[in-house]
Amino acid sequence: MKTAILGTGTVGRTIAARLIELGHTVTIGTRNPETTLARTESDAMGTAPFAAWAAENPGTTLAGFADAAAGAELIINAINGSASLDVLAQAGAGNLEGKIILDIANPLDFSNGMPPTLFVKDTDSLGEQIHRAYPQARVVKSLNTLNAGLMAYPDRLGDPGTVFVSGNDAEAKDTVTGLLKEFGHRDVIDLGDITTARGTEILLPVWLRLWGALGTPEFNFKIVR
Amino acid sequence: MKTAILGTGTVGRTIAARLIELGHTVTIGTRNPETTLARTESDAMGTAPFAAWAAENPGTTLAGFADAAAGAELIINAINGSASLDVLAQAGAGNLEGKIILDIANPLDFSNGMPPTLFVKDTDSLGEQIHRAYPQARVVKSLNTLNAGLMAYPDRLGDPGTVFVSGNDAEAKDTVTGLLKEFGHRDVIDLGDITTARGTEILLPVWLRLWGALGTPEFNFKIVR
Repeated sequence: MKTAILGTGTVGRTIAARLIELGHTVTIGTRNPETTLARTESDAMGTAPFAAWAAENPGTTLAGFADAAAGAELIINAINGSASLDVLAQAGAGNLEGKIILDIANPLDFSNGMPPTLFVKDTDSLGEQIHRAYPQARVVKSLNTLNAGLMAYPDRLGDPGTVFVSGNDAEAKDTVTGLLKEFGHRDVIDLGDITTARGTEILLPVWLRLWGALGTPEFNFKIVR
Repeated sequence: MKTAILGTGTVGRTIAARLIELGHTVTIGTRNPETTLARTESDAMGTAPFAAWAAENPGTTLAGFADAAAGAELIINAINGSASLDVLAQAGAGNLEGKIILDIANPLDFSNGMPPTLFVKDTDSLGEQIHRAYPQARVVKSLNTLNAGLMAYPDRLGDPGTVFVSGNDAEAKDTVTGLLKEFGHRDVIDLGDITTARGTEILLPVWLRLWGALGTPEFNFKIVR
C-alpha cells in the first residue's frame, strides 16, 4: 500500500521502518525536507537526526507534507496532537480527500507540566476534530494506546493485548485492521464511530501512571472477556 | 473485618453479599433505614426493594450512614459519585477518622445525557476530593474499573484481568489488596498516591464504549507486560 507518514519523530520512524519491512511504500512528510535533512544533532529528547536514521533505515522517501499526502492511499498522523490540525492543513484538504487518515496521535497538553493533561477530554476528541475538519477524508483512530515500539512490533509482548479502531467508514476500518494484523496485533476491537475515539484518547492518563508504576512503557491494555 | 458499605444499590448489595460469604461483618449504610426498609417496589432501574434483597441475603445489618461508619474498620463508598461527598458528610468526619475508606465510585455526570461524562477529569479525581475532605481517613481508590459482578466475583472471567489501587497510605493499600485477593483478583497494580485515581476514574469513557461495542459489561482491563 502507498502510505505517507506525517512526522519524523520516533513514532513516525518506528512505523515507517515496520511498513518498509512489510513491503509497503512509505513517504515521510515533514514541514521542510531540506531543513529536516540538514540537521546533524540529536534533539532535546536525544532523538538522532533524521538523516542518520534514514541512512540506517533505507527505503523511505522524505517529502513536504503536501507531496507526501498527495501520493498516498493511507496517511498516518504521527505528529504530536497539538500540531496535528496545523500539519494536516499544510498537507492540504485536496490531498486528503478520499484518503484514509490513520490518526495515532494523542491530544496531550504539556503546558501545565508533567504529567501532561488532555486538551480534549470526554466531550470531544482529536480524532473527531480531524474528522470534522476533513469530512471528505476517512478518519480512523487507532494505535494511540501504546508506545511506538509496541504499535509496530506488538509481539515484543508475549500477549500483545488489544488495540482499538474508531471511525465512521467501515471499509477504512477494515483496511486499518488488516494493517494492524500485519504488524502482529491479534485482538482488534471496533469501538464504533469516530466519537468513540473519546474513549481511547482518554486512556492516556492511566497509561502515563502505569508507566510510572511499572517503570516501563512496554505494556498494553488487553480486554479480557 | 468489620466493614460498612455506604449505599444500598446494586453495587453495595453485590459487595455486601461477597463480604458475608467470605466471613466479614457487614453493615450497610443508608440515609434513613426505616424509609429504605419500607419500600416495596422496584426502582426505575428495576432494582428490587432492599428488604426483598435482604431477606434473600441474610447476614447484613442496615443502619444510618453515621452508625454504619462508626462501627467499621473499613468503609466502602458504593454511593454514586455525585452524592459521595454528601453521604460521607452524613457519615461524619469523626466516624471516618483513622478508617480505611475504599472508594469504588465514579464521578459520572448524567446531566448531559448518555453516555455520561465525568465531573472531574484528568486534573482532579473523586478519590482526591474525598482524601482532601477527610485527611484523617485513609482513602484507597480501587474497583471502579469493573461492573459490580466482576468487582466481587472476578473469576466469572476465565482471566480476571487487572485491578488497581491508588492511595497515600501503604498499609491501607495492603489491607485493600488483601481483600481484593479474597474476592479472587490476582493481578493488583499499585499505581501510587491518590492522585493516580485520575488515571483509573478516567477509564470510564472507554469502559462505556467497550460495553457498547462488546454488548456486555462482563469484561475487564488487563495490563499485559
